[in-house]
Amino acid sequence: MKDKVIITAALSGAAPTKGANPAVPHTTEEYVREAQRAEEAGAAVVHVHFRDPNTGAPTTDPAIMQEVVQGIRENTSVLLNLSTGVYPEAPLEMRRRPIELHTPDIASLNPGTMNFCLVSHRDGKIVYDFTFANPFSASLEFGKIMTERGIKPELECFDIGHVHNVIFLEKHHHFIPTPMHFCIIFGVMGGVPFNSDTMNSYLHALPPGSTWVGLGVGPFSFPVAMMSASFGGHVRTGLEDTLFVDYAHKVLAKSNGELVERAVEIVKLAGREVATVAEARELLSLPVRAA
Amino acid sequence: MKDKVIITAALSGAAPTKGANPAVPHTTEEYVREAQRAEEAGAAVVHVHFRDPNTGAPTTDPAIMQEVVQGIRENTSVLLNLSTGVYPEAPLEMRRRPIELHTPDIASLNPGTMNFCLVSHRDGKIVYDFTFANPFSASLEFGKIMTERGIKPELECFDIGHVHNVIFLEKHHHFIPTPMHFCIIFGVMGGVPFNSDTMNSYLHALPPGSTWVGLGVGPFSFPVAMMSASFGGHVRTGLEDTLFVDYAHKVLAKSNGELVERAVEIVKLAGREVATVAEARELLSLPVRAA
Amino acid sequence: MKDKVIITAALSGAAPTKGANPAVPHTTEEYVREAQRAEEAGAAVVHVHFRDPNTGAPTTDPAIMQEVVQGIRENTSVLLNLSTGVYPEAPLEMRRRPIELHTPDIASLNPGTMNFCLVSHRDGKIVYDFTFANPFSASLEFGKIMTERGIKPELECFDIGHVHNVIFLEKHHHFIPTPMHFCIIFGVMGGVPFNSDTMNSYLHALPPGSTWVGLGVGPFSFPVAMMSASFGGHVRTGLEDTLFVDYAHKVLAKSNGELVERAVEIVKLAGREVATVAEARELLSLPVRAA
Amino acid sequence: MKDKVIITAALSGAAPTKGANPAVPHTTEEYVREAQRAEEAGAAVVHVHFRDPNTGAPTTDPAIMQEVVQGIRENTSVLLNLSTGVYPEAPLEMRRRPIELHTPDIASLNPGTMNFCLVSHRDGKIVYDFTFANPFSASLEFGKIMTERGIKPELECFDIGHVHNVIFLEKHHHFIPTPMHFCIIFGVMGGVPFNSDTMNSYLHALPPGSTWVGLGVGPFSFPVAMMSASFGGHVRTGLEDTLFVDYAHKVLAKSNGELVERAVEIVKLAGREVATVAEARELLSLPVRAA
Repeated sequence: MKDKVIITAALSGAAPTKGANPAVPHTTEEYVREAQRAEEAGAAVVHVHFRDPNTGAPTTDPAIMQEVVQGIRENTSVLLNLSTGVYPEAPLEMRRRPIELHTPDIASLNPGTMNFCLVSHRDGKIVYDFTFANPFSASLEFGKIMTERGIKPELECFDIGHVHNVIFLEKHHHFIPTPMHFCIIFGVMGGVPFNSDTMNSYLHALPPGSTWVGLGVGPFSFPVAMMSASFGGHVRTGLEDTLFVDYAHKVLAKSNGELVERAVEIVKLAGREVATVAEARELLSLPVRAA
Repeated sequence: MKDKVIITAALSGAAPTKGANPAVPHTTEEYVREAQRAEEAGAAVVHVHFRDPNTGAPTTDPAIMQEVVQGIRENTSVLLNLSTGVYPEAPLEMRRRPIELHTPDIASLNPGTMNFCLVSHRDGKIVYDFTFANPFSASLEFGKIMTERGIKPELECFDIGHVHNVIFLEKHHHFIPTPMHFCIIFGVMGGVPFNSDTMNSYLHALPPGSTWVGLGVGPFSFPVAMMSASFGGHVRTGLEDTLFVDYAHKVLAKSNGELVERAVEIVKLAGREVATVAEARELLSLPVRAA
Repeated sequence: MKDKVIITAALSGAAPTKGANPAVPHTTEEYVREAQRAEEAGAAVVHVHFRDPNTGAPTTDPAIMQEVVQGIRENTSVLLNLSTGVYPEAPLEMRRRPIELHTPDIASLNPGTMNFCLVSHRDGKIVYDFTFANPFSASLEFGKIMTERGIKPELECFDIGHVHNVIFLEKHHHFIPTPMHFCIIFGVMGGVPFNSDTMNSYLHALPPGSTWVGLGVGPFSFPVAMMSASFGGHVRTGLEDTLFVDYAHKVLAKSNGELVERAVEIVKLAGREVATVAEARELLSLPVRAA
Repeated sequence: MKDKVIITAALSGAAPTKGANPAVPHTTEEYVREAQRAEEAGAAVVHVHFRDPNTGAPTTDPAIMQEVVQGIRENTSVLLNLSTGVYPEAPLEMRRRPIELHTPDIASLNPGTMNFCLVSHRDGKIVYDFTFANPFSASLEFGKIMTERGIKPELECFDIGHVHNVIFLEKHHHFIPTPMHFCIIFGVMGGVPFNSDTMNSYLHALPPGSTWVGLGVGPFSFPVAMMSASFGGHVRTGLEDTLFVDYAHKVLAKSNGELVERAVEIVKLAGREVATVAEARELLSLPVRAA
């Protein structure tokens, strides 16, 4: 089983909208179609940030969330992973909703505070400059909600210290079950870039026995996927992470499915195999769920 | 000159008070005496957080600051390094004062946002759980004030990503002069712990030509000093960082001077030499200052 | 140009023979055909170990070398890289021949001594247990021959210390021109395995400005190629390194060309582009060569 | 117990002689006196290379070995660690003698082949250029002799790959008992230098549960000791490793005892305690020995 790789498709994120790539889903219909394409291509998990179908803005409106969750559940068999990051300046009350109103298989949990910035690496322009605040009290609270409801936390770390926050909280507060599952993130300004040092430090910081998936933003999306597949991790791709299937030539991805196809190639080149949904469930030690 | 080591004595910090160790200075007289002892023992720099002499609480009261600065300037020849971190929840307005009202040789500049927590590693109790917010806009502003006033920024990084924030800001906004001077910090909960990985990652993240000083909190104070002296960095100690001269046996330090004596020993064991104030000024490329 | 990746095809090595994969070239005709296929697929360099066409054994027989070199030169325009490693127990006299009798564009130079072992990772059987001896005197001699004859050395390092040997020899003996070009090797028993630590250590050991290509043996061939493409290196593949195009399912590669096709995919996923022969020549600062 | 540090004094090595520092022991009397001084200062182990008392040359003459071993055994209670490296070009037959004719508590075992060179870092002169050959067959044989005779192997690694050789041999051939004990060596030309990368790579390469001691040559002796004490390792010093108690000022050490005194200071600064002989025996899981 250790040679099985779970592919996650992050269908749409907080930032990218249809304006940047028409394949980014806004409506329920689009979410469902993207989830189906990702599944067909080989994804075992879809990660979802909800959007207002009219404006494209991030939302946790209960009706919208309900429709999208139901649509994906009814039309695919992938594992559902909901974001509790929502967007950097979202209040905790809003960020709690996806795990209070739903019981996704997996949900993201952010154990570290940082500057979450959007910048131009060409001219240095600082487009957004947010404090993404995740106090220890909130991490504990979110972890406890997830544990009670049988939702597997995906611990989203943007910097090396964030992993150590988790280790402290788990050791002393047992706020989530072990083995833990991490998402190590590279390339968000305010967190760490992708290089051989940050890769190495993340991997050594993770507690033995943990599972992990790498996430690279923009040009680092496939490089991080290649690294993750090579070093025993799981692989994530999707329109949240990159709009392009060929970054050098700025070729837009036609769908999440097209990005997942590339992830499948990478898994093969690494000499590993793509995990099915059932295998993903086992690999992540997902809580048993009543049918 | 590369074999000269600048020793900084951090006379008193935001957290430790006389209750924890009677040698922690609260009054101007005590600050001056501690600065003198540190200088006698070999320190070329003193780093200062101001305190209300009556309550011991952190302050940036202009009258108190003035008295302490003047006392140290008149009674020692060490370089003066003032904190603009002040304490984690201090408002930016308060944190700006030490560099608006004074022109220390050096001042700390915090280029990263984090959870700044005080915890017990024995029982996991979370004593403080602050968001230490340092948005990019504030880092740019503080850097510009310092540059205009000829104050050398000491870039205090608590996590690996913080170094990369600086690199981005310097590259595109030239907010401070190069070569830059970093303080790489280990052991504050919310940032990185001290281990061979975080050491290695920090060192590789620093831009070539930078100077740096290591800072370890509590039990990591001397280990980080030994690492810094061994790998070409400068050394910091002082009652802000550790209350104990022998941590294993919980022997309280009698003064900053006693801690500096240990730093001097470490420098020698590393085969290097202690820098004088004049050498420190040159090593840090301090701006020329009118007498 | 830094986003251009040179692909090297190592047509055949010391160890693998036609018995293991029928595509391994033994005859001149086969070498030429494999070089052509590699070139068509995108390789700018072919790396060659010579073999006796009858027995398949490694050789440096002048007539055999001459025929193969001439065949490749006349039928392709790729850069030619000849091995001076030959095989681990080959005497220095034999290993010197490829650079004494020929002037390839590039030749391998081994700056470190090690156990060069062939083992089974299944049952631990030690098939070969050679001392691959490369004393400093031999590295200096080989470097001088190459420099005099305008052959670019590819510095083959099997362990981290080997890089440091080169740095010492270059610093004090200027035995080869700079910037230097390294081949960092992972997975040969007696050298380092492939993991995030060895990757990171190699990259930091290389002198600034160096070029490098990663080489992974067997199951590590494509993983090393993926990390090399991601971290700014050049890419090598070929039947010397791996017999399989799909290691998990033990699918034999039909030719070096098929392996090069995978390398081309990897380069694209990394957001970079495949270098032409002319670009490779420039990237490696190859000595000007009289036509 | 994990905060106890075993200090080893390497009384004399293959290279340094009385000409370089008069305190280097040549005669039995000198060996005994040096062992006593080391023990008094805090060493729990002495590491011994034998020398011809008349010429100072390395030897494994049975009579000389017998006299020195007996002298140290009768006059101290330290653990005895004999070198099977002897000197780089010593034949295996000679190197086997210390463990065939004696049953020291510990003996060095070299699991990697390398260039073992003596060079000048000032002018680049290559004084010695030896192949230090340690084929897998020899490592297996030496390990088996030690295991049969109840001698604990100290696995001397000069490069990162050497650790991996041990891991392979232990995994498949169980040639020595676990947990294993390593000596990670920095600064011998042909092996790795001392920097944050090689430190980090060694530490991550060691199998979990292993014990280890750091060894730095010349100017790196105390820096390696400081990092070893800081990162959970054991500490080694002695006239084999450095002739100087103050390297910057080239102050010769008066005895191994004086060097051990510095090691004791380092252990305290790291917040740890010096292990007694009994504690060292337990920490190293030394085989039970008939009185």
